[in-house]
Amino acid sequence: MKHTQRPTSLPDTELTRHRRLPEQGSLDRGVLDAILDAGFVCHLGVVVDGQTMVVPTVYGRDGQNLYFHGSVASRSLIASPRTTVCVTVTHVDGLVLARSVFEHGVNYRCAMVYGVPRVITDPEEKLSGLRCLTEHAAPGQWDYARQPNRKELAATSLLALSLDAASVKVRTGAPDDGDGPDAELGIWAGVLPMVTTFGHPAADPALPVGIAPPPHITARARLTR
Amino acid sequence: MKHTQRPTSLPDTELTRHRRLPEQGSLDRGVLDAILDAGFVCHLGVVVDGQTMVVPTVYGRDGQNLYFHGSVASRSLIASPRTTVCVTVTHVDGLVLARSVFEHGVNYRCAMVYGVPRVITDPEEKLSGLRCLTEHAAPGQWDYARQPNRKELAATSLLALSLDAASVKVRTGAPDDGDGPDAELGIWAGVLPMVTTFGHPAADPALPVGIAPPPHITARARLTR
Repeated sequence: MKHTQRPTSLPDTELTRHRRLPEQGSLDRGVLDAILDAGFVCHLGVVVDGQTMVVPTVYGRDGQNLYFHGSVASRSLIASPRTTVCVTVTHVDGLVLARSVFEHGVNYRCAMVYGVPRVITDPEEKLSGLRCLTEHAAPGQWDYARQPNRKELAATSLLALSLDAASVKVRTGAPDDGDGPDAELGIWAGVLPMVTTFGHPAADPALPVGIAPPPHITARARLTR
Repeated sequence: MKHTQRPTSLPDTELTRHRRLPEQGSLDRGVLDAILDAGFVCHLGVVVDGQTMVVPTVYGRDGQNLYFHGSVASRSLIASPRTTVCVTVTHVDGLVLARSVFEHGVNYRCAMVYGVPRVITDPEEKLSGLRCLTEHAAPGQWDYARQPNRKELAATSLLALSLDAASVKVRTGAPDDGDGPDAELGIWAGVLPMVTTFGHPAADPALPVGIAPPPHITARARLTR
């Protein structure tokens, strides 16, 4: 195996081992990538001045890294490279409505990535990381919008977190009490799915008449795709 | 003011002060309640064996508390009452597509609640807290489904987190670069809204024919409300 090749399975480490509900765990690298690619807001867990904070922030993914960014003045970004953070991406796919309250739950896909983030200082790497992050959230915008200038780059902190230590959990399907005594109760059971979609692009009121949203934006709206 | 009355504004504490983008901060207690009521999955940030973890979990809210629960064996729940946790609830409402990449962002509503959670051991309080949590995620299910028995209650840990220390941030509306030099670039700018909806209830394949989903479930599906 070449060193540049991406591992197809996640290492089973002390940090990432599934202790509870191991049947929901996955060591498939492809599942991790798919979960990260399906979202663009993660929750960054980091200790700032002794206090755990959970901060929502946008992210991007390339082969081996998760990128996140923010102001150089951001306390959570300043603290991140000093400690092992946990970045969690969660998709809620549905409510699992069982016969018993106890068996109620959520269908979800979740990735927790652990590591000490690296501050990206190399100008070329910073630009490509910001491009990755922008294109992850808003594909097509890096080349369409005005790219960051020197001053904006200096005001932005970009961090890279290796995907080497990640814990992935997925729950799908029906409730678990379909074959137990509660199945006799005559209670409806199933899943109430949840779906997140993009709506129609809403133009900035300050936009001059005659500037239409480009196809890479309209293509994402629910009714046009 | 009576002690039982809920405060209408959030205390401005050292922990919850908005340092970055203070214009996005809110000290309105009603905004906090609305953000919590609009979701049912939070991200619990807690230090477990020295490592920060960010764990998605369902929650409920009553007047002054946020409830979350799980197995008595859950490491994150065991660790929570020993430290000040941060529970974050985030709603992503849209992608803010500006003229410049730098001004790109997200329309969102976010609440971060800090505190040392209290383990609920009083049987009556535990039952009412679990009811609150269940009804928050799945209104109508507490009375419809089979309620927890003694064994299930013993296997479940319920924690209450006071809403006294919370930081609320909201961003709405158009990009911020509509009145700067970039407005002349002829680039489309606006918001790509994101909407999360419930789909049609999907019956458990193990369900006998003839058991229809009750109105409190079907009423939540997109096409029937």
